Amino acid sequence: MAFPTLNDIKFALIRIKSFIHRTPILTSSAINQIAGCEIYFKCENFQKVGAFKARGAANAVMKLSEEERAKGVATHSSGNHAAALARAAQVIGIPAYIVMPSNAPEIKKKAVRGYGGEIIECEPNLMARETTLEKVVKETGATFIPPYDYMDVVEGQATCALEFLDDQPDLECLIAPVGGGGLLGGTALLAHYWDPEVKVYGAEPKGADDAYRSLKAGRIIPQTNPQTIADGLLTSLGDINFEIISRYVKDILLATDPQIIEAMRLIYERMKIVIEPSCAVPLAGLLANKEQFKGKKVGIILSGGNVDLGKLPF
Amino acid sequence: MAFPTLNDIKFALIRIKSFIHRTPILTSSAINQIAGCEIYFKCENFQKVGAFKARGAANAVMKLSEEERAKGVATHSSGNHAAALARAAQVIGIPAYIVMPSNAPEIKKKAVRGYGGEIIECEPNLMARETTLEKVVKETGATFIPPYDYMDVVEGQATCALEFLDDQPDLECLIAPVGGGGLLGGTALLAHYWDPEVKVYGAEPKGADDAYRSLKAGRIIPQTNPQTIADGLLTSLGDINFEIISRYVKDILLATDPQIIEAMRLIYERMKIVIEPSCAVPLAGLLANKEQFKGKKVGIILSGGNVDLGKLPF
Repeated sequence: MAFPTLNDIKFALIRIKSFIHRTPILTSSAINQIAGCEIYFKCENFQKVGAFKARGAANAVMKLSEEERAKGVATHSSGNHAAALARAAQVIGIPAYIVMPSNAPEIKKKAVRGYGGEIIECEPNLMARETTLEKVVKETGATFIPPYDYMDVVEGQATCALEFLDDQPDLECLIAPVGGGGLLGGTALLAHYWDPEVKVYGAEPKGADDAYRSLKAGRIIPQTNPQTIADGLLTSLGDINFEIISRYVKDILLATDPQIIEAMRLIYERMKIVIEPSCAVPLAGLLANKEQFKGKKVGIILSGGNVDLGKLPF
Repeated sequence: MAFPTLNDIKFALIRIKSFIHRTPILTSSAINQIAGCEIYFKCENFQKVGAFKARGAANAVMKLSEEERAKGVATHSSGNHAAALARAAQVIGIPAYIVMPSNAPEIKKKAVRGYGGEIIECEPNLMARETTLEKVVKETGATFIPPYDYMDVVEGQATCALEFLDDQPDLECLIAPVGGGGLLGGTALLAHYWDPEVKVYGAEPKGADDAYRSLKAGRIIPQTNPQTIADGLLTSLGDINFEIISRYVKDILLATDPQIIEAMRLIYERMKIVIEPSCAVPLAGLLANKEQFKGKKVGIILSGGNVDLGKLPF
């Protein structure tokens, strides 16, 4: 498997630069005091569409040939990738077909439609999603852009760590949440090229710990019946990302839901920023493993801020 | 009445600079589209103690003589000024005595104690607050630093607009919330010195519109029985601030509670930042008076982010 090189990732950043924000890095002396280390937060909750997913989707769409572009892009997702792909397509004026389960929240559908995406509803199960997507692709000739297990998407997500280490070169550790592994894979790859001494950690809810178990087992163990508030991290690891993560990630930090909620509250109260539950998992994982990070300079990627404000867990 | 000069305000900023954040200015293309103008948000919710009040308190404390400092400072407040004064005193290592009603929320007391302030509880009425404060001042010799009707506090709050116009010199209008009027007074004064063409507006909840009524009447009409979610804006205008505001503020924009909640939600959802209800009043006032601001460059001061997350109105 040929991974993107450092140059590939640098070119990806140039490619998508005018379509995304270079997100700010924030710090909180109050949280540093609690954590016993120096934390830098890369705020992808301020990213376009409210999540890092804007990077991978933009990169994948921009890399299509002219012929492919003309036919548009398609995916199945009810999360941030759906909105990110719809927006990336809108920016360059091509159609985006988004297969969504019929029971997806209205707010998610509204976001996709707001970016000009065409929603195709299907029964709320994986089989229906896949067959519906297949049908859409057949009919339209659109290119399927998967949410994470796709090289151009991973390359795009890697631009986040590139900006991060460029702005804050003295980081000793990086922590990213892990669901399908696109962000963690991209982060680990970039950090490895940047400086193999930078330790990269994934952070995962205890109730959806397939990456943790897969890494221990040395093979992908699919996630079944995930139980966690971190609803962006329910999926199983992708093949590409498993390859990268098993090579370049030092460890997966686990956090329970109460720990995730506590970390989420800390970020709202002390940093005054809005994040989604999945986004609090790295801080929760760090706080659950304080001694490992004592006195270190740690970079945390805050992955997104799309949360139903009526359902905050506090 | 001798108001602080432009030089006084510039010196105040130098005086307090190392004790406060130079807060960032954020924009949101989504909100601009809704508003029909170009809005710049000065984020005092990211300020030390989570509110602009850190400025006035720091300035007042730093201006005390050495003799006065030795005896400490005192105030009665259950809001952001209490925490701001306790912190300012802690920074220079002097005592702060904070008179608080016995029914003040535990979280407010905790904040004051967290900054090393000494809380003196009293019955929850204005009379008890004043007599208790008087007693504390008599016994300790501490200097009373009022929350808004105090020249050094107004001078400190004015540093916010100084930074704002320094970073974004092409603003045509400024909007600040108005309760006691310290922030609006300081903003109006600074804008007047900076460029009298910059129009300054106050923004006030309809359910606590004493500044609006006072300005129309040409005299202070005290606020009685305020009814609004914007709990930082319940107080009546101070004398000093009434003087400044009646000279230099163009108008007071009013907003109903549903409009305030809607603006608050917009800021959470679109900007991904945490603000308190009072802080949403300027955007609510602007949206209720869109035609006045059409196509203009408008600066809004986001005053603070100290909100009970368990009681968000959505």
